[in-house]
Amino acid sequence: MVMDKSERHIARAYDRDLEAIQAHIMKMGGLVEAAILDAAQALSTRDEELAEKVRNSDRAIDELEALIQQEAALTIAERQPMAFDLRTILAVMKIANNLERIGDYAKNMAKRTGVLVQMKPVEENSSSVRRMAKMVEVMLKDALDSFVQRDSELAEDVRQRDLEVDQMYNSLFRNYLTYMMEDPRNITACMHLHFIAKNIERMGDHVTAIAEQVIYLDTGAYPDDPRPKADRTSIDYSEGA
Amino acid sequence: MVMDKSERHIARAYDRDLEAIQAHIMKMGGLVEAAILDAAQALSTRDEELAEKVRNSDRAIDELEALIQQEAALTIAERQPMAFDLRTILAVMKIANNLERIGDYAKNMAKRTGVLVQMKPVEENSSSVRRMAKMVEVMLKDALDSFVQRDSELAEDVRQRDLEVDQMYNSLFRNYLTYMMEDPRNITACMHLHFIAKNIERMGDHVTAIAEQVIYLDTGAYPDDPRPKADRTSIDYSEGA
Repeated sequence: MVMDKSERHIARAYDRDLEAIQAHIMKMGGLVEAAILDAAQALSTRDEELAEKVRNSDRAIDELEALIQQEAALTIAERQPMAFDLRTILAVMKIANNLERIGDYAKNMAKRTGVLVQMKPVEENSSSVRRMAKMVEVMLKDALDSFVQRDSELAEDVRQRDLEVDQMYNSLFRNYLTYMMEDPRNITACMHLHFIAKNIERMGDHVTAIAEQVIYLDTGAYPDDPRPKADRTSIDYSEGA
Repeated sequence: MVMDKSERHIARAYDRDLEAIQAHIMKMGGLVEAAILDAAQALSTRDEELAEKVRNSDRAIDELEALIQQEAALTIAERQPMAFDLRTILAVMKIANNLERIGDYAKNMAKRTGVLVQMKPVEENSSSVRRMAKMVEVMLKDALDSFVQRDSELAEDVRQRDLEVDQMYNSLFRNYLTYMMEDPRNITACMHLHFIAKNIERMGDHVTAIAEQVIYLDTGAYPDDPRPKADRTSIDYSEGA
């Protein structure tokens, strides 16, 4: 189809809008990555001030998300994108929503850290949590890179790595059960730690969802095989207790 | 401003679109309400079949959400709503997203029920969980009614009731800690029950978010006072263990 001059003009306006929105996505991604790392560091070094910083930084993340949703809606209204362009904008809105939820989990981690620093530390566990958080942060970085470059191979790689995050969660879940059974004084702390581990595992799910949007944008289809899933705590422990 | 004929034509087309989307929201709401009640009943009667039904019904909820998001985007693209009309469509998209997340929590509850029925029951607790779920379901029903009628008073009432849900969660959290400390064999079951209680508490948060969208649509502003919040487990238990 040969575009006439006004169509080309409209297409360029849409592209400019999309670029501006993508720039906001990347800025938001940077804030969320920092929140993940800071939250993990605050937990492992029992740093209340850093935890508070994470809690406060969530507002900026939420504001960016609202801005992106608004910009995306205006772009749809003004440029009337159809077919692929419309799907792209909808994918961008979903990615912003995933980022916002990852930010929420980091904030929740920081809140629980504020509680945990009041308690006797549970033996060596924060290093595993921190490793898990670091892994999710790298996945997020790669997912956002794959988004900018529309690189579905990198996105698929991110998606596969989520399996490892799930396995790390399973192993932590088992550890916390053990600590609680060994010493009931660990129970409250372990409940919070378990929620934190679960939050990181959920962050991984949202990073995976971002990667899947990229695969969809790049290849036109969602991945064939169902998303790998290895949170098996609802199965592995059915015989427990 | 006097509308010319073509503007009136466009306005009516937008209204028709909005009505169709709202009908889907109500249908989705009905499915989500049923999922909440069934999930709670399956848990309290240890009914694995019903739990499986809830798990399977989540797909229909997800499909409706995807349909609504698609319809909303098309309405924005084709009708180019501005100002209030655009905000209304964005609010509808958010409500669909909240409903989808409530459905996810019901599904997760049903998954954990499948695990819990394999274990020795923890003494009387399912009736509190069921009461809490029932309360959230009624709140959801009222929130959706308030949406259809753009009734911000009813929406505000729903919002206030979320406080009670939070208090019920706090009380359950305390009970589970007690059960775990009394008998370590309860630990695994209580971890799952605690997650279920937390899931219901989060459902309440999403119902509240729906009510807040209604208040925004009806009054043009979000509620002034910050949302009442009574999940104080991250504070109340800081001295524990």
